[in-house]
Amino acid sequence: MNSRPARTSARSVDEYRDTIEQLLRPLAARRVETVPVPDALDRQLAEDVRSPVELPVFRNSAMDGYAVRAASVVVAPVTLPLAGMVAAGNPGEAPLPRGAAMKVMTGAPIPPGADCVVPVEDTRTDGTTVIIERGRTAGEFVREPGTDVRTGDLLVPAGVSLTPRHIAALAAVGLAEVPVFEPVRAAVITTGDELVPAGTALRPGQVYNSNGIALAAALRANGVTVVSVRHSTDDPEVFRGLLTAATASADLVFTSGGVSKGDFEVVKDVLAPLGGVFGSVAVQPGGPQGLTVVDGVPVLSFPGNPVSTMVSFEVFARPTLRRLGGLPPVPTRELPLLEPVRSPAGRRQFLRGRVTGSGVESVSGPGSHLVAGMAWADVLIDIPADTTELPAGSTISVRSL
Amino acid sequence: MNSRPARTSARSVDEYRDTIEQLLRPLAARRVETVPVPDALDRQLAEDVRSPVELPVFRNSAMDGYAVRAASVVVAPVTLPLAGMVAAGNPGEAPLPRGAAMKVMTGAPIPPGADCVVPVEDTRTDGTTVIIERGRTAGEFVREPGTDVRTGDLLVPAGVSLTPRHIAALAAVGLAEVPVFEPVRAAVITTGDELVPAGTALRPGQVYNSNGIALAAALRANGVTVVSVRHSTDDPEVFRGLLTAATASADLVFTSGGVSKGDFEVVKDVLAPLGGVFGSVAVQPGGPQGLTVVDGVPVLSFPGNPVSTMVSFEVFARPTLRRLGGLPPVPTRELPLLEPVRSPAGRRQFLRGRVTGSGVESVSGPGSHLVAGMAWADVLIDIPADTTELPAGSTISVRSL
Repeated sequence: MNSRPARTSARSVDEYRDTIEQLLRPLAARRVETVPVPDALDRQLAEDVRSPVELPVFRNSAMDGYAVRAASVVVAPVTLPLAGMVAAGNPGEAPLPRGAAMKVMTGAPIPPGADCVVPVEDTRTDGTTVIIERGRTAGEFVREPGTDVRTGDLLVPAGVSLTPRHIAALAAVGLAEVPVFEPVRAAVITTGDELVPAGTALRPGQVYNSNGIALAAALRANGVTVVSVRHSTDDPEVFRGLLTAATASADLVFTSGGVSKGDFEVVKDVLAPLGGVFGSVAVQPGGPQGLTVVDGVPVLSFPGNPVSTMVSFEVFARPTLRRLGGLPPVPTRELPLLEPVRSPAGRRQFLRGRVTGSGVESVSGPGSHLVAGMAWADVLIDIPADTTELPAGSTISVRSL
Repeated sequence: MNSRPARTSARSVDEYRDTIEQLLRPLAARRVETVPVPDALDRQLAEDVRSPVELPVFRNSAMDGYAVRAASVVVAPVTLPLAGMVAAGNPGEAPLPRGAAMKVMTGAPIPPGADCVVPVEDTRTDGTTVIIERGRTAGEFVREPGTDVRTGDLLVPAGVSLTPRHIAALAAVGLAEVPVFEPVRAAVITTGDELVPAGTALRPGQVYNSNGIALAAALRANGVTVVSVRHSTDDPEVFRGLLTAATASADLVFTSGGVSKGDFEVVKDVLAPLGGVFGSVAVQPGGPQGLTVVDGVPVLSFPGNPVSTMVSFEVFARPTLRRLGGLPPVPTRELPLLEPVRSPAGRRQFLRGRVTGSGVESVSGPGSHLVAGMAWADVLIDIPADTTELPAGSTISVRSL
């Protein structure tokens, strides 16, 4: 008679996540390519970018108005001869005659000799002379070169995923292209004889395969390129074939299913002999987890239940993938619980929750199969391993989905 | 002698944003197309999606273990004959013989006659009989059909921009494709004789054109498809030609530059005669604004300074575009100011700010040309129009960039 398998003590969530983070660290060094700035949105900058120019490039006017010497307008109102006009785009090399005014447009060069700009609102003109109704002091409404950016200033640091404001700054200093990292490339393999593709009729015992589609969406939403999504039966030879193809084309492989204590655990059966570590993490949902390196490629094996798969991704992979991709960390905050919750002792529990004006409510029971709750949830409620009960009104940590 | 133009009282930020929101409201009714669920990430659902199936589809096991009648395991330990096995994917139609146990895998159908599952951890077996070491009550570890989703339950409401958790739910109920709205299509026209494209050498008086690239990135980051980005000189004929092309191909047109009080305001000069409303909004930066409807297409005219353009987009366009696209609202929060700020009376000011652990600091002066500050900012600090001074430590509203 077989004895019950020895229980190895389950690893903590933090310990397991740290192990994955260590394993994925080499993925920070990825191939660099050069892309045009307009195509660089959401790409990760590979090198510090310093400004090749100073901004403003030249001394220019902050207002539509008249460039004058402040000394000419100490006493106002005063009438000055109008000595011409400088439009934006004009080289602006004609000097301001002593005691005169020159019309300037916003952004136009300040003529040599002028030291301030009187806004058009404070003037009247007949086209030959201009009446300055309010004087200005030297420097007013003049933008000096280099006051925004000096040549060599750090504009955007390496490693950042570029947002519109970064793109704006890169374009403003005239950069045409920037070096960016290629995204992390991931492959997904789902497993399970019971799974059938969407759009087919279910026979008894069959369920729809959602994990491939869901993991691919979650990966894309976190800056990862998905190179393939394939499904394996519970036949080890089929899984082995898909695994070989996945590790040949991706930096990282995710599998779902086949990791728990059943008789047909294809993922565990194939990967454990290759050095994979399979065991329990003290978490609900998503307890059974596996981690293997195949031909140098990390393979993260999640349990097959759809909600377990998604929570595993959120808890174990997403924080590290965002850091690798230069994306901001997953936001967390403390909120009051709107209803009491119970939680199993010794396991950190992640409940699907929905934030309302007054706090957070659970939208699912603790069962790991509740995929509808996932659709309505906008946060995971993070209940510590040693907590078994929380009354309504308790403050609890939540992380955004 | 020309008199100074009469000052019309400037509109408030909220009033102007509401006007734009009204003007853009018809863009909510856009063409619907059907896309495969795996391609629907970040697309906006056009109709309520209700579940075509119930989930779970059939009564199944929540654990790897043994399906039994609870009545058979009231007294434990107890030895039961092993009557076979139900793997996941098995139709599960063979009934459980009275007084026996059947092995079941997680997700596998519960055999007719069984009413609970004893987890494998609480059992031992020799392959012919199984020793149940701990009894279970009816219903334990059994997932009943429809307990997650019933047929016809609302899964995802119309109008939502689909995130990975929505995709997961749609895939779990076996939907192959969903109806989504086509994105809002925008065209961008930048103006100004002084502007030259990135990558060219600057001649005196010239600056790099960043607004087209920056606006396109901001639009894309907020769910809008950018159909064209073009640049016009200050020649009205050139601008008119680009405008005609833009309104023919886009739902919405953005222009930058040519809206203030200078002598060559190409945007205002062309659009005002077409019914455009040009004037001041009580905001800094971004005061001069224009709004026109050309051939039924709204044209939003922002000032040409790069920071004014980006702040105009953030304040006047982004909230409405996100609502139209089903994206969550721009996050705002209250934070302590880390340094005192001054602000002009009568104008709401948006300072570029950076959030640190202890509050928010300004990363730019109030001058509208400071594009480097934009690159380092992660929020806009929102200073009310009637506030002229705020001491360090004041609580202030910030909105995420």
